[in-house]
Amino acid sequence: MITLHGFSASNYYNLVKHVLLYKQLPFQENLVYAGSEALLAVSPVGKVPAITTAEGLNLSESSVICDFLEETYPEIQLYPQDNGERAVVRQIMKIAELYFELPCRRFIPYVFSGTDAPESLKVEVREVLTRGIIALNHLCQFTPWVAGNDFTMADIYVYYVNQIVIKFGASQLDWDILADIPGMKVWNASMGESEIAQQIAADRDANMPELIEKVTALINAK
Amino acid sequence: MITLHGFSASNYYNLVKHVLLYKQLPFQENLVYAGSEALLAVSPVGKVPAITTAEGLNLSESSVICDFLEETYPEIQLYPQDNGERAVVRQIMKIAELYFELPCRRFIPYVFSGTDAPESLKVEVREVLTRGIIALNHLCQFTPWVAGNDFTMADIYVYYVNQIVIKFGASQLDWDILADIPGMKVWNASMGESEIAQQIAADRDANMPELIEKVTALINAK
Repeated sequence: MITLHGFSASNYYNLVKHVLLYKQLPFQENLVYAGSEALLAVSPVGKVPAITTAEGLNLSESSVICDFLEETYPEIQLYPQDNGERAVVRQIMKIAELYFELPCRRFIPYVFSGTDAPESLKVEVREVLTRGIIALNHLCQFTPWVAGNDFTMADIYVYYVNQIVIKFGASQLDWDILADIPGMKVWNASMGESEIAQQIAADRDANMPELIEKVTALINAK
Repeated sequence: MITLHGFSASNYYNLVKHVLLYKQLPFQENLVYAGSEALLAVSPVGKVPAITTAEGLNLSESSVICDFLEETYPEIQLYPQDNGERAVVRQIMKIAELYFELPCRRFIPYVFSGTDAPESLKVEVREVLTRGIIALNHLCQFTPWVAGNDFTMADIYVYYVNQIVIKFGASQLDWDILADIPGMKVWNASMGESEIAQQIAADRDANMPELIEKVTALINAK
């Protein structure tokens, strides 16, 4: 059976969990936090999530895990069959990660410690997000799904990326970032209505107090 | 025919060019620089490289292009057939990009303008590189290739990532970064001896003066 390592307050963890649930694959969850030896044993960069495959192989990096799950369990399909269409799905995922999620992640320490990020960082993040918005406007279809008529890995990926953008980017920059991509907000709300997304959100909310406790202890220890 | 858009002084451009040459695919090069309208027309984030496929589809993001080329032209193979082994190859590529190349890229403006990066940035980059080194030590084999017995996409990817690590990271941090991964330096030197790498290095050197001229003009215009 597949083991999913990490914690339910992590959006990357939830992204992979959504894929596992959508594909109806049996898996068990192993609660480990960033910075722990238990995590480093399965994820060499110490990142959440990691999986241990049914064959006992440890894998980290969400996009790598998504590709592996699709190629190993293609029965419930999340990538288009056509090579070009599949590449566009991966392009949307990569751009959402590099130009939407990673810049907003830089605000996390400030949000958790209750301080305002420096203006120079805000300028930098705004610039990266602006490039991401142009690209996602160009690539996303919302007809009704991100990459067109079919629900794909890009829908799951962008939905969980957006959680970081909303929670950390929009709040620190006082900017309704998703509104700059026509169709994104309506699609994002509809994604949140699925049974899988609701279950994952409930698990996330249940885990959040423990995460906040851990992060606060870390900040206070500095 | 495939068109490769970008410029020869870019290591990402050269990474994709190496894949195209290795796979013996016919392609034409279209010289465009970052920040140009011509590039934005084919790469929505304005990043080098992009390709236009034989079918007329524009794609950006090196890892996406690598996957597309492998899946469309599998005759000369660069990914293992086994799903788990292929995932490990992609994991090495992703970690090399996020934890080795991207942090070192943050020094580029300082190197080009001849100034020293601020100490706070150096501390941040050192931390990220340290995680990357642990992970790459764990994942890379060098027996004799990065992922084991067979030459894979990871060899090409890491070789061009290393060019940024050496040129910008090692110089700004005064740290022989590759030496902290046993086997990496010998493997890297042998990669540079291939006919394809030599041809790409010659094209890169020929393009470098024009790139430096463009960057200098940009810095002076600020």
